[in-house]
Amino acid sequence: MPQLLRVQCFTVSRDGFGSGEGQTLERPFGHADPATMFSWAGATASWANRTEPGGTRGLDDYLTRDMRHGIGAEIMGRNKFSPQRGPWENHEWQGWWGDNPPFHTPVFVLTHHERPSFTLADTTFHFLDTTPADALARAKEAAGGLDVRLGGGVTTIRQFLEADLVDTMHVAVAPVDLGRGERLWEDHTELLDRFHLESLTGRSGVTHLLFWRR
Amino acid sequence: MPQLLRVQCFTVSRDGFGSGEGQTLERPFGHADPATMFSWAGATASWANRTEPGGTRGLDDYLTRDMRHGIGAEIMGRNKFSPQRGPWENHEWQGWWGDNPPFHTPVFVLTHHERPSFTLADTTFHFLDTTPADALARAKEAAGGLDVRLGGGVTTIRQFLEADLVDTMHVAVAPVDLGRGERLWEDHTELLDRFHLESLTGRSGVTHLLFWRR
Repeated sequence: MPQLLRVQCFTVSRDGFGSGEGQTLERPFGHADPATMFSWAGATASWANRTEPGGTRGLDDYLTRDMRHGIGAEIMGRNKFSPQRGPWENHEWQGWWGDNPPFHTPVFVLTHHERPSFTLADTTFHFLDTTPADALARAKEAAGGLDVRLGGGVTTIRQFLEADLVDTMHVAVAPVDLGRGERLWEDHTELLDRFHLESLTGRSGVTHLLFWRR
Repeated sequence: MPQLLRVQCFTVSRDGFGSGEGQTLERPFGHADPATMFSWAGATASWANRTEPGGTRGLDDYLTRDMRHGIGAEIMGRNKFSPQRGPWENHEWQGWWGDNPPFHTPVFVLTHHERPSFTLADTTFHFLDTTPADALARAKEAAGGLDVRLGGGVTTIRQFLEADLVDTMHVAVAPVDLGRGERLWEDHTELLDRFHLESLTGRSGVTHLLFWRR
């Protein structure tokens, strides 16, 4: 089986923003309300952070359930890892995810400001100042034959799309407009020369765009 | 996590038949053409029997990909296991699937005609003359905490639905009419008092009905 680079369950607003303006420690998605953006995922039975029993088991659930399967490494951008910009002031920040991050694989953080790798539970974070192609080669090597997840954010996904490294991409379009922030695309049809697209709208009102390489 | 009883990727015709009339060794689905019924699944990248690279990676693929995950045992009816009816003439028949069956778990075959268990590769077939509830209890015990797949055929699924033992059910409706054979339902809306339903039609023209317990 070929090793794929996959974007999974990446949520954008109807007007194409993956994150709002003004990311801070208190507001990882800037002015965007994460409850509104991600409620479709949080409502599913398989959502990783679910604490109560129950949850939906339709299309949205197939999509969140699939996230954990067959992934051996993740690549993310600095702005997904941290609200800080520029050189690291210190190494105290270890991501948003607490002592047991939800990745359970090596995670490669793309940044111009390198720092030593560290491990939390079964997730090791590595910091790379390199090209998307090189980061992908490193992640594939670490993934033990499994696929690599491209975790975002928007800037990182755009860089990998530009380098034509993305094999499959699931983008969930939440029924909300943000107006400003980090924009994934002007219009998703700009990808159709390179990708097949299947578009599905289920009970939750979220439209799921499934892209795979032509 | 509760252990679920799940129907996965069970395909019926537009008029509700899961199998045609006149099952034989040569025609496991009777007069129904399996190529037409199951082409939606065979076209996906994750189809278990795929031998060539390639394949689609949209909704249909999420559904075939999900089949292998989180399942610790399967329950099937005698008519899915074998084209023979009545008492076993001998024990030479070991299923349709060759030396390496695609289940990789214990499989419980419901039959009024018991026979000894046997193992092919990592699949062990057991034969039970018992109620759906008891078969499910046995399968759950064997599943090691994972879910149980209800593999069919039609008669078996109907029995488990009648006993209200099914937790989730994915039925694919292929764009073909059979006219006669084994009928799953007159109309799927008869299940809506007990199940949520999400209905999705993707690029392949197959309509996927996703049911989960209310």
